[in-house]
Order: sequence, then structure tokens, then C-alpha cells
Amino acid sequence: MSGFSADDYRYMARAMRLAERGLYSTRPNPAVGAVVVKDGQIVGEGYHVRAGEPHAERIALQQAGEAAKGSTVYVTLEPCSHQGRTPPCAHALIQAQVARVVVAMIDPNPEVSGQGVMLLRSYGIEVEIGLMTEAAMALNRGFIKAMTEGLPCVRLKTATGLDGATATAGGESQWITDEAARQRGHLLRARHGAIMTGIGTVLADDPSLNVRLPEHLQERYHLDEALCHPIRVVLDSQLRFPQTAKMLNLPGQTLIATTDAARAKEKINAAVLHAMGVEFILVDEVSPGRLDLQAILRHLAREWQVRDLLVEAGPTLSGAMLEEDRVDELHWFRAAKLLGGDARPACALPPIDAIEKVRRWTPVDCRQVGSDLYEIYRHPEVR
Amino acid sequence: MSGFSADDYRYMARAMRLAERGLYSTRPNPAVGAVVVKDGQIVGEGYHVRAGEPHAERIALQQAGEAAKGSTVYVTLEPCSHQGRTPPCAHALIQAQVARVVVAMIDPNPEVSGQGVMLLRSYGIEVEIGLMTEAAMALNRGFIKAMTEGLPCVRLKTATGLDGATATAGGESQWITDEAARQRGHLLRARHGAIMTGIGTVLADDPSLNVRLPEHLQERYHLDEALCHPIRVVLDSQLRFPQTAKMLNLPGQTLIATTDAARAKEKINAAVLHAMGVEFILVDEVSPGRLDLQAILRHLAREWQVRDLLVEAGPTLSGAMLEEDRVDELHWFRAAKLLGGDARPACALPPIDAIEKVRRWTPVDCRQVGSDLYEIYRHPEVR
Repeated sequence: MSGFSADDYRYMARAMRLAERGLYSTRPNPAVGAVVVKDGQIVGEGYHVRAGEPHAERIALQQAGEAAKGSTVYVTLEPCSHQGRTPPCAHALIQAQVARVVVAMIDPNPEVSGQGVMLLRSYGIEVEIGLMTEAAMALNRGFIKAMTEGLPCVRLKTATGLDGATATAGGESQWITDEAARQRGHLLRARHGAIMTGIGTVLADDPSLNVRLPEHLQERYHLDEALCHPIRVVLDSQLRFPQTAKMLNLPGQTLIATTDAARAKEKINAAVLHAMGVEFILVDEVSPGRLDLQAILRHLAREWQVRDLLVEAGPTLSGAMLEEDRVDELHWFRAAKLLGGDARPACALPPIDAIEKVRRWTPVDCRQVGSDLYEIYRHPEVR
Repeated sequence: MSGFSADDYRYMARAMRLAERGLYSTRPNPAVGAVVVKDGQIVGEGYHVRAGEPHAERIALQQAGEAAKGSTVYVTLEPCSHQGRTPPCAHALIQAQVARVVVAMIDPNPEVSGQGVMLLRSYGIEVEIGLMTEAAMALNRGFIKAMTEGLPCVRLKTATGLDGATATAGGESQWITDEAARQRGHLLRARHGAIMTGIGTVLADDPSLNVRLPEHLQERYHLDEALCHPIRVVLDSQLRFPQTAKMLNLPGQTLIATTDAARAKEKINAAVLHAMGVEFILVDEVSPGRLDLQAILRHLAREWQVRDLLVEAGPTLSGAMLEEDRVDELHWFRAAKLLGGDARPACALPPIDAIEKVRRWTPVDCRQVGSDLYEIYRHPEVR
């Protein structure tokens, strides 16, 4: 393996930062950034904004123009070699006669993985792989997981006090965190293809589950109205979903996961909801009242191209997701408050008899947001 | 007010860092650092190490020698003007003919506050006050509180999982955090004049409550054997303290807070414990089984010169300290674990009916220590 230079790192880091700006708008495509460097100068850069629009490499090459010839291109993901909605980027790199391509990670899609690199090399372009791979993977955890496992990356969000309890009453209007944390929560929503909750939360709080962000952030992250609303997924084994739910009148798709039996039993409600735009995900119960979470996740990845799923739920669903080990990341907003005796826990988990049996999550970030903390933990086996 | 220059900040910041190295050994004296600057060069610096040994200014001046003449001296606390165990620092500054003294904060002791500054000025030395005052106050919160209120600064330490629960069994051998966090916990102990716990913890865990640190840290922070062990304070309203307790055979003082009635009732136990070196703090009960915490804190400050008190206790005492609003800082070690259903809470607090009534603490630090987080919160009214 060749060693990478400090300049290599610098340019790839720039490409990563560019890619990040697409995090909220590229789904179901991955976020990708590219930087074209000629004679120690950045002559072109770009990032993928939206599915159907040009890929990062193409934008960067176009900006570079003639200067692309003999240049080095840094790209956070292997250039594609197949014709999609846009022509393959590998061809554009070949046509531009770049000299060298540095790739952070190869395409995780097993059907095309490595083909872009092979194509470039077959045209004599020097290709190096593996610079800042971990950062590249962190950019597109959901895309990678969907491609390799057919499942979305699941992030569980909660907001608690120091003692780990949520507000007694629950629901977002009773959030215990500050405005700054709430805004961060909306930004977190914006990068997810879907938000999942349970029917209990719908009945108790009538949540909107939409993305509410100030205009400057909407612009910065390309969140035009049509795109910025994640799919809403409600788990509802008895199909108790009310036709008056606020989310039915909001832009974006609502999905209800239930059983075939419940839909048959509540067929009028089901028909009205369907007429109002709701689609159903029909799965089995693994035990009374508990839907097959694995089947729901698989369905979301396959049928709805959900790469990243945010769970914002009450203690029952949150606890079930954790107990079944289906959570990849915890996003924990923590208000510096002690909520006292009978506060509601963030997740209902069975008692644990021995401390040795408890999984240790990996802290990946902890920062102050307004007057709260925002802690992020990753599953110890990176998935 | 004159403005301070960037250089002023730089030198005072250096003085702060020096002062910090005395944090673990100067008690009951405050931690103080001093820097002597002549012609843009540091010509002397020092910090107070131990009561009875030279003060920071004197060490810094001695190092500067002749160069001190006409210099600027940065000192984190007002130089003393009274004869204590060592001669007054103001005299030393006058004798050295320094030109200017920059003081982060004046002495909080109301009996001497401002006198050092006055004395220096009466000799024509320019004195400026108020550079990095907040940092200077953070260095000596306990000293300040003891001087101004006759109470120690109370820090409550706990170690929990993400969901705010401590291990079911409790006690330090069952700590849920890692070795790195445990070491940080011992360092925290080392800067406290006393550690407080409840009899329940003594009976359940037989804790040592001593400071166990690797040699390099002991050397760095001047923790020789005799000094490094904080006073142990056990709250024991029924005087159930066992004569077999491990802490009785460790270096350092053990105090038991109890009632006069309990001591009379358990007079044999009391006599044996006293013969083993234990001293008693006799206070009233404010309710059955609950000792007068305020009286205990006042006694510790007055009779034992405790400036900083660390509470490492079970949920009952921790809860009582919080409920009575006697805690100045929370030191929260958080393991990235979910402890499940019936785990023990860090502090037993009464239920709270409305979220608006909950105090919001001020986060002052949050960092990763090994695989755990270490969060520090300050009482919203800095005391």
C-alpha cells in the first residue's frame, strides 16, 4: 500500500465536508463529495445534492474544465461505472483524462463494488483506495447497511434528564430540552428517510413527525418542501390509528405497520386511512401486541428505499428495539435536570441480573447544544 | 477599567495552570499560581504547594531574582498582607520593587479582602484586578465558599449508565465504569478535604474512601501519604458503624455524624470507635433518621477546615443533599450502558409534578474518559 501524504488527507477531508452538505437531500442516494486538484491547487469541487441530479465527480470536473487533465481527483465513494439516471462518473473521469483518483471507500453495493475502480485502471488512471475510509463510512452508514444487509441504519433518539427519564407526560410539546436541542433534533430527522414511532405515542401526543427548520438551514441543506419530510412509520398492531391524526394532513407519506388480521378486523378504518394516502406494512406478531420488527425494517429498506431510520418512540417500542438489538446508534439529548421519583424511563427494558451482561456502547460524540448535552453512541460492532 | 492585553491573558492563563498543580495539596489553603514577566519574558513562576510552605508569589520572585525589579507579576489571588505561617507576600513584592501586579481576584476572606492590594498601591505599585476572575474562582470554589458562607463547596459524584441508574448491587467494586473513570474518580477525591457517605453504604460495601492513584500522579500533584487522604465522614443517625470497618485501619481521619442520643444509646460502640481514632459530629435529626445536613456541613467547615466536600453516597443521602439544595456541582461519570429494569437510581428524589419546577443545572464540562463520559454540572446560581 502506498502511504498517503498530508495533502492527500487535506483534500479528502475537504471532500468529506462537501459530502456532508448533501447528507439531508441525496437519499436514497449516498452523500458524496469530490475535489479536483492540479499543481497543488483545488481547481474544482462538488457534492451530490439530489437523486437524478449530477454526481459529485461530474460537478467538480465541470468546474475544473480543462484543468482536470492530469489532475488528482479525491472522491469519498468509488465513482460509479453503470448508467443510472445520470451517466457513469468513471466515464467522465476517463474523458477528462485525470491522472489519479483517490477513493475513500469502494461502493458497498455488491453488484457494482470495485467496477468503477477497475474501469479507471483499465484506462491507465492511477487509483488509490482507502484514505479516510472510516469517515467515509460514517457519512453513509445507512446506504452501506441497506446495500450489504438489506436493512436501514437504525438510530434511536431520546431526550431525558440526567437520571435518564423522559418527561412524565411525554410527547414533543413536553420536551424537557431547550430550543437549541429541539432544532438539532429536527436536523437529525432531516437526514433520515423515515421516522418510526408507536401507536401509543400517536394516541397520546398526536405528533407531526415532520422537519421544522429555519430557512437558512433549509437552504444550506437543500431541504425543499417536497423532499425534507421523512416517511412516517407507525407501529400499530391493533390498527387503532385515528383518522384525525395531525400527520395525515401534512406533506409526506404515512405508513402503518400492522397485521393482516387487524386490517381485516378494522377494515373501514383501514379503507378510510388508505383513501387518505396511508399505505400499510403487513407483518406478523412475534408475540401478542409485538410486531415483527425485523420484517418491518426489511420492508422499509426494500420497498421504500429507507437507508436511515430514526426511532422516536415511547419506552415500549424503544425498549423493544434495544432488546432485539436492532439499534445502530443512540442519539441522546440530555437536559441537565433531575426529573425525580416517578418519571417515565426512556426505554422499557427487562431487569438485568449481572452487570457483565450489559453491552457497552461506544461514545462517538458528546457536545453541549444550548444548555443541554447531545451524546451519540454507536453499537460496539459497527454495522 | 483598563483593558487587558492578549499578553496579559496569556501570562495569567499560565499562572492558572500553575495554580492547578497545587489543587490537590494546598488545602486548607487556596491554590495559587504566579508568573513574573520582565521585558516580555517569563523570568519567574511558581505555585503554592502546601500549607506552611512558601506562597506562589514568593517562589516566583525568588526564581526571578534581580529581574523582578520593574517587572509585572500575574497572580491568581490577591497577595496576602498578613503574617501567617509564612511572611506576607505583599511585602515580598514591595521589596522586590515590582512595577505592576495583575490580580485575577481579591481575597474572598472578608477580614483581609482588598488589604493586599491597598498595601501594594500605597507603595506606588500599579495593581490591576479582574483578569480571568471566573477561572480564578473556579480554582478555589471551596475556599471561597468557606470564607464567605462558612460552608464547604459540595460536589456530588455518581457513576451511572445512560439511563441514570447505578449498578444494582452498588459499591465501588461493582462500579459500572472503566478503569480510566475510576482513576479520574480518585483524582477527584484527592482534591477534596472530606468525602461523605451514609452508613448504608458502609454496611453494604465497606468502602475505603481513600485515594488510590499511580505514582506519577501522586508525584505530579504532591500527594504524599500523609496529606492525600481526605477526611471520611459517615452519616449514621443510629450509630450502627461497625468496628470492623475497613476504613478504620487506613490512614486518615474518620468522622461519624450522629445524634447525642444515639451516641448515648450506643456508648460502648462509641467508646471503642473513639479509641480507634474516630471523632463524632453531634447534630440533631430534622426528621426521624435524617440528620441536620446543614449543621454537619457547617461543622466540617469550621472545625475541620473542610473547603471541598465530595459526596459519594447511595440514593438516600444523595437524594437528601439534592432535595435540600446543598449540592454545588454534580460530577457524573456515565458508562455507555443501559442498565435495564430494576436498576438502582443514583438519587432518591420525590416525584415532581411539573417539568417547570425542575431546576436546570449548568453543564460546565463533558468529556470522554476511557470508554465512559465524565460530565460536570454546576448549580445555576454559582455559589
